[in-house]
Amino acid sequence: METSGKWFSEQITPDLVMLYRIHNIAYSGKTRYQAVDILDTDTLGRCLVLDGKTQSSEVDEHIYHESLVHPALLSHHGAKTVFIGGGGEGATLREVLRHKGIERVVMVDQDEQVIELCRRFLPHHHQGSFDDPRVELRHEDARQFLASTDEKFDALVMDLVDPLEGGTSYLLYTKEFYQIASERLNPGGVLVTQAGPTGLLNYSECFTPVVRTLATVFPRVTPYTAYVPSFITPWGFALAHTDVDFSPPRSEDVGRRLAERLPGPLRYYDGVTHQGMLSLPRYLREGIEAEERIVTDDSPVFMV
Amino acid sequence: METSGKWFSEQITPDLVMLYRIHNIAYSGKTRYQAVDILDTDTLGRCLVLDGKTQSSEVDEHIYHESLVHPALLSHHGAKTVFIGGGGEGATLREVLRHKGIERVVMVDQDEQVIELCRRFLPHHHQGSFDDPRVELRHEDARQFLASTDEKFDALVMDLVDPLEGGTSYLLYTKEFYQIASERLNPGGVLVTQAGPTGLLNYSECFTPVVRTLATVFPRVTPYTAYVPSFITPWGFALAHTDVDFSPPRSEDVGRRLAERLPGPLRYYDGVTHQGMLSLPRYLREGIEAEERIVTDDSPVFMV
Amino acid sequence: METSGKWFSEQITPDLVMLYRIHNIAYSGKTRYQAVDILDTDTLGRCLVLDGKTQSSEVDEHIYHESLVHPALLSHHGAKTVFIGGGGEGATLREVLRHKGIERVVMVDQDEQVIELCRRFLPHHHQGSFDDPRVELRHEDARQFLASTDEKFDALVMDLVDPLEGGTSYLLYTKEFYQIASERLNPGGVLVTQAGPTGLLNYSECFTPVVRTLATVFPRVTPYTAYVPSFITPWGFALAHTDVDFSPPRSEDVGRRLAERLPGPLRYYDGVTHQGMLSLPRYLREGIEAEERIVTDDSPVFMV
Amino acid sequence: METSGKWFSEQITPDLVMLYRIHNIAYSGKTRYQAVDILDTDTLGRCLVLDGKTQSSEVDEHIYHESLVHPALLSHHGAKTVFIGGGGEGATLREVLRHKGIERVVMVDQDEQVIELCRRFLPHHHQGSFDDPRVELRHEDARQFLASTDEKFDALVMDLVDPLEGGTSYLLYTKEFYQIASERLNPGGVLVTQAGPTGLLNYSECFTPVVRTLATVFPRVTPYTAYVPSFITPWGFALAHTDVDFSPPRSEDVGRRLAERLPGPLRYYDGVTHQGMLSLPRYLREGIEAEERIVTDDSPVFMV
Repeated sequence: METSGKWFSEQITPDLVMLYRIHNIAYSGKTRYQAVDILDTDTLGRCLVLDGKTQSSEVDEHIYHESLVHPALLSHHGAKTVFIGGGGEGATLREVLRHKGIERVVMVDQDEQVIELCRRFLPHHHQGSFDDPRVELRHEDARQFLASTDEKFDALVMDLVDPLEGGTSYLLYTKEFYQIASERLNPGGVLVTQAGPTGLLNYSECFTPVVRTLATVFPRVTPYTAYVPSFITPWGFALAHTDVDFSPPRSEDVGRRLAERLPGPLRYYDGVTHQGMLSLPRYLREGIEAEERIVTDDSPVFMV
Repeated sequence: METSGKWFSEQITPDLVMLYRIHNIAYSGKTRYQAVDILDTDTLGRCLVLDGKTQSSEVDEHIYHESLVHPALLSHHGAKTVFIGGGGEGATLREVLRHKGIERVVMVDQDEQVIELCRRFLPHHHQGSFDDPRVELRHEDARQFLASTDEKFDALVMDLVDPLEGGTSYLLYTKEFYQIASERLNPGGVLVTQAGPTGLLNYSECFTPVVRTLATVFPRVTPYTAYVPSFITPWGFALAHTDVDFSPPRSEDVGRRLAERLPGPLRYYDGVTHQGMLSLPRYLREGIEAEERIVTDDSPVFMV
Repeated sequence: METSGKWFSEQITPDLVMLYRIHNIAYSGKTRYQAVDILDTDTLGRCLVLDGKTQSSEVDEHIYHESLVHPALLSHHGAKTVFIGGGGEGATLREVLRHKGIERVVMVDQDEQVIELCRRFLPHHHQGSFDDPRVELRHEDARQFLASTDEKFDALVMDLVDPLEGGTSYLLYTKEFYQIASERLNPGGVLVTQAGPTGLLNYSECFTPVVRTLATVFPRVTPYTAYVPSFITPWGFALAHTDVDFSPPRSEDVGRRLAERLPGPLRYYDGVTHQGMLSLPRYLREGIEAEERIVTDDSPVFMV
Repeated sequence: METSGKWFSEQITPDLVMLYRIHNIAYSGKTRYQAVDILDTDTLGRCLVLDGKTQSSEVDEHIYHESLVHPALLSHHGAKTVFIGGGGEGATLREVLRHKGIERVVMVDQDEQVIELCRRFLPHHHQGSFDDPRVELRHEDARQFLASTDEKFDALVMDLVDPLEGGTSYLLYTKEFYQIASERLNPGGVLVTQAGPTGLLNYSECFTPVVRTLATVFPRVTPYTAYVPSFITPWGFALAHTDVDFSPPRSEDVGRRLAERLPGPLRYYDGVTHQGMLSLPRYLREGIEAEERIVTDDSPVFMV
């Protein structure tokens, strides 16, 4: 019968489980930091799953990665140096490297084994970006690196796993971290971070406190959202500028800047898409306004 | 263990199944037309499920129903008469009746038993709207009704189940139906229909052919989209105007018109939300452009 | 699609989950001691579920309850007084009361609310047995009762939930408890207890240590097994006699004793069934032999 | 969370689904005849799944295969030639070859690709038996082979997939087939067939009609049953003798014959196990008695 088969189940909440049909398990194992599954699904193509949670899928990862990278880089007058925190699949790196003006990228992902697995099993994701000569790849704690380096960047791109209790990423979503990060930005610099889901039922798990926390450090914060099918929910991002005079591009300017800076068009992102991403539905704008939690090292936010 | 429990499963596609935890089955049975379950879930509140497919949930039905009704009514200069096709829960009716200028609503839903069940079990949805003296409720085929009546309306709101093989609703998504419907609109009139999912993986199941089909009958068609958590995907709608001079309100005008015509604010819809809904992501705009199917009685579209 | 529907899921082990289709939730709530669900399934009829674990189903409960009660009572020369520990559904009581010679039954189940729920929702199970004048029903801890009473019985029937960490029943499977129990038996008396699953994969979770533990107190212990569909595994029981001269009836004698003592035939149990139940497969006999764990209050056995 | 993971689901009935956790998909594909999955589960080891139905698992296949082969061969005074119908895993072959007196085995399984896959992926099952010089392996229809050969055998062992509508095996469970088979037995010969589940809820799907059908051709038929964990139900078998003077060994004789004919002990089967297997519970004996269906080519039996 058609229900018989091979499935990947993901418990989204205690009360919601998803089952995706799979036809192959390309890899299943544990690194020093996390459990890793690389699964071939019928609907989403090849998927990376860390600690039981889908990180990205072959079919729709471009929505997430284009949404993470391009609004940030287009809101800078001409970024040359970029820091990436996390981003093991290499797809954030791929999107950053599209920008012709980029001269140097430092990518810090502590889990070297995950990167080796992605390099081997997710060529669709990285498309060779790890081998680009502009890239320096480091395996250490991203916060530790930023706290101890003297280098400054034009953009910081935080491509992180969700803040989970018992994990390590939660210290990359706190006021203390954003303070450290802001000091590693050149004038006119921009930070962007993934910020968790933004659906009606789950926007307050991570999105609204992170947006409010960024606003305690950065004078201008721009939240936005994009629907990523493999997450089965709209997903949140936040841009943070060090100077109130800098801001995301106007919708009308996106197309021109893309044409100037990139060798060709993108698949998901353009000016109208940008407009839709930044036009948050009423409940999200009210949710941000009503949010009172500021995330700190001592009072972190954890997703379920 | 935490997995043990009572669940509602919905097979979204052959390769994707969702499980929602339930704590009560308020009703389960069959009407003359369809299987009906009214379920109390932990995440979504009380849900209406027809033929195994979630129609709406207590927690987020306002997103769907506000999105269906208000862009249409605000794009009319002052609608007085409205036809609703389907809409058994009574929530579309509720939203229509909010408009102070409405004088008459004819709601045609063939399944009288479903309406009786909704009246009894879904008071949160209808909020008494069935008893409003402006409402005429009829139990017959909506297409048959429109084809045989002489009455004309300022707005037609098609709140339908998805077009499924073996079902009856699929004849309410065809060119022939839209021709009939267009003839029942007063000058300046507007039709709006639900139009299926708009995620990257499923937008072509129903949305793009319906939008293209509407455009063969109506001179101006405006597709838009809203994310509804209980559908786990963004959902599509389409506005169709009989006259190219009429169109949806500009984002800036939405707030003013809402204030003039409604007694109070809505929960989901306002000017910025409107802007986001109409700013379709690139793949949807390209998908509509590339779509070649025109839905007809002889060549219908069926969702899986 | 046929997978869509309402299900009860039971996590049998961390690596095995069962889903039963349900059509009604007759009751769902919590007593002072446990979570209770009374579910109407399509396959098993009405089921009692305690703390997420199926206890018995309308369709096959007679297999479990006949297997628990009759081998014990038939192995006694003519029991008049019986103690039942647990047994909330009233079905063990029903089977005991079938024996014409029974004059008094003391049933001790601490969870009065569960008994009230069973009385109301499981009439098929108890068939009015709670109202039999021979029955004294008490709501207190069964071990405490046996430790403090002076009364002695011809048979003790332990119809218990599985020993779970954090539960209270596990102290009814220990050597100390069996010592207490043995002192409450009249000469020639017999104790029987449910003893967990006996499949190849799960017999050592409970069955073999309980059998070995009984043998440290009782001179003759007879393990046996019956397949109960709603448990999806053969289920174990153990008879314990205070005197090595007493023993279960020979297969040939079962039919005659049943005819003498009961008003009519049973549905599952007879002489040939008895023969099959006592003829354990090789792995079970070897498993009992190899078992070294003796269950004590300080070193209890817990099922997963 | 612990529910997240990789699972194999098997729809046992329309109202019952099992989920086994898997950690590897050793093979997944389609032969000319059927879909094949070879899965590594945490509970059952490596499993062979044909058309979505678990055929056997590394952990418990010996229960099924010992139960199928040894009662038949021990009920013969000294079988030298054996025919195996089906049996792709090679485990039935392995058990047959244990008997020191066996001189020739003809195994006919039409699906050569499945045998190649089993040879490659299931070494635990076949343990090299395909390479035994006493074996002739043929890939053709088993019924066709028996109908056209002149060879006779001491034992016929039917190790078949369940009779499913649309499959081909159902013609190996009919009166016409048993007539053909009986003519290929030497005097004193024995046929054994797997005969479907024997639980209270499913014994009449296949078991009782097959037993009654055998009895229309063979003068002595002996049904028996064994619980196989990966089938989550007791499983039925039937021995059929061409002569009423021949019969299964008495329980007391099983041990001696095993010792004489096999090089060492078995894991599941011995004299007491034999006794338990042949002592059917009351509902099965009554079910056989009450069964009126005779399976014929024109009126076959299909499992769901």
